[in-house]
Amino acid sequence: MTRDTADAATLIDGLQYCKWSREIFQQMREGGMSAVHATVSYHDGFRDTVRNLVEWNWRFRDHADLILLGRDADDIAAAKASGRTAIFLGLQNPMPIEDDLGLVEILHELGIRFMQITYNNQSLLGAGWMEAVDGGVTRMGREVIAEMNRLGMVIDMSHSGERTTLEAIELSTRPIAVTHANPSWWRETGRNKSAEVVKALAETGGMLGLSIYPHHLRDGGATTLQDFCAMAAEVAVMIGVDNLGIGSDLCQGQPDNIVQWMREGRWTRPDRRSARAAFPAQPEWFGDNRDFAGLAAGLKAAGFSGADTAKILGENWRNFMRKAFKPGDLS
Amino acid sequence: MTRDTADAATLIDGLQYCKWSREIFQQMREGGMSAVHATVSYHDGFRDTVRNLVEWNWRFRDHADLILLGRDADDIAAAKASGRTAIFLGLQNPMPIEDDLGLVEILHELGIRFMQITYNNQSLLGAGWMEAVDGGVTRMGREVIAEMNRLGMVIDMSHSGERTTLEAIELSTRPIAVTHANPSWWRETGRNKSAEVVKALAETGGMLGLSIYPHHLRDGGATTLQDFCAMAAEVAVMIGVDNLGIGSDLCQGQPDNIVQWMREGRWTRPDRRSARAAFPAQPEWFGDNRDFAGLAAGLKAAGFSGADTAKILGENWRNFMRKAFKPGDLS
Repeated sequence: MTRDTADAATLIDGLQYCKWSREIFQQMREGGMSAVHATVSYHDGFRDTVRNLVEWNWRFRDHADLILLGRDADDIAAAKASGRTAIFLGLQNPMPIEDDLGLVEILHELGIRFMQITYNNQSLLGAGWMEAVDGGVTRMGREVIAEMNRLGMVIDMSHSGERTTLEAIELSTRPIAVTHANPSWWRETGRNKSAEVVKALAETGGMLGLSIYPHHLRDGGATTLQDFCAMAAEVAVMIGVDNLGIGSDLCQGQPDNIVQWMREGRWTRPDRRSARAAFPAQPEWFGDNRDFAGLAAGLKAAGFSGADTAKILGENWRNFMRKAFKPGDLS
Repeated sequence: MTRDTADAATLIDGLQYCKWSREIFQQMREGGMSAVHATVSYHDGFRDTVRNLVEWNWRFRDHADLILLGRDADDIAAAKASGRTAIFLGLQNPMPIEDDLGLVEILHELGIRFMQITYNNQSLLGAGWMEAVDGGVTRMGREVIAEMNRLGMVIDMSHSGERTTLEAIELSTRPIAVTHANPSWWRETGRNKSAEVVKALAETGGMLGLSIYPHHLRDGGATTLQDFCAMAAEVAVMIGVDNLGIGSDLCQGQPDNIVQWMREGRWTRPDRRSARAAFPAQPEWFGDNRDFAGLAAGLKAAGFSGADTAKILGENWRNFMRKAFKPGDLS
């Protein structure tokens, strides 16, 4: 039994990294999710990423009654019409393209539609937010941004440093995205985004997906829905409502050692690993995909109209994807 | 200036491995070629094959006025309508899939439409024709044949041993191909195909692409067009005309060290390499794609009707591709 029909609300989550299972895909259907951007890789190189894509191919086959691979924005409507959720695939780090520009197109052909220019560290393309020095977008970074623009692969700056993020917004000829982050004035951490970034993003037509990951929330897992939605209202005062969405960063079902993998990858000496890396507890109002539609009540209570609430919960992402996934100049 | 229109003959070459260049693509147009099956890899592993595909992506972009990537048989008509040649990509060895079944689908997504189960040596899937012992299709070979059947990737047995070839014909639920070989009764070499194989292939709807590579011809490069076409007529007496095509094995412009690569790969000790490996001289009647249409006169002189000549020079391959590239049971 699904809640989605062509007439139902379009609900889109701008980022999730769950331990995927049939149960989670069923919860997407119960929650009426039209589309979800799902992370395929962090620190995996090309070959390991292809292996992850093989597993996605099997998931799309095994759960064809619940999900389908999203290749362009029309697949959102196709998913709704068939009572399924469109999964758009993305990378949180550019390791999968190694130093080979051609792999951007190869991964696009294999379904990748989002890629972060950096995760937390310096990458070949730019600086992550945890680096002491942010030298901005690199020489290869400029080539890759142009290539992503050409193909219609979304540049995602969620984990990048301030300078790298501002330069990417400037260099990209197409709107970019911060799929999952909050304003740093609300929760001060380099991982959240400055007012300058939030404004530059929106002025160029880019999307900000507000995150529900506890480390990005003012009071962590104790943050109330009311407080989260009041923050959304503050952002809307600054940039309007059309460039605002949700990127929940839901990591449902992942074991705690995945936190080590995300933070410490393969570059950290085992004896320097943090022993207690663990997922924080989620806010009680957002535990899985069935809670997504419940954000509407909070947004309305914070003053958003019904129409604006619908935009934030999915229509803005859909409108962005309609443009962002179109091939650019393919000459 | 192209000779191709929707009304012109459909000319299809079942295999070429040229040193690709704009000049060769222009010759395809001058020769009125509707489609060519082009080799991407022999002994390259997955990553190297992806690099070869990156180069093909660039070729399709740089020469978009002359060629396009063929993904299904409709692309043959699309190519004709736009005065271009459809290039169908293939592998002459299964090294690119390593031991990972999932890479068959990945490579299919990247455009691969033909794959040989073996080149000359034993592979993970079966025995090549140069092995002393042919143990037939292996355990992994059975899995891969089923996967290729599912996806609509053509099983090509051109270089495989007799037993492996017969077993593949038997195991495959869809017609297979020998894209480039001649009957061994005409030129006796293990690389050509026995009457038993030729009959089993045709009885199951498979295609035999007659080769113009000198080592497959009765008198090498001195073989006359008349003799080649008389051989085609003999084959037609045995199996009829509908399963017969051309797979020229044209290796235009390749340097001689490519012969070493094809024959000796990376498994041969340098001091055991054959010092004089070289490409043989082509017959004077077949030097490049502009000579393909000229085969018609020889076939007609050998007794083929105009309609049967058109089948052999392209229509049979097109009809085969219409069925072969359709996805099978994708559940």
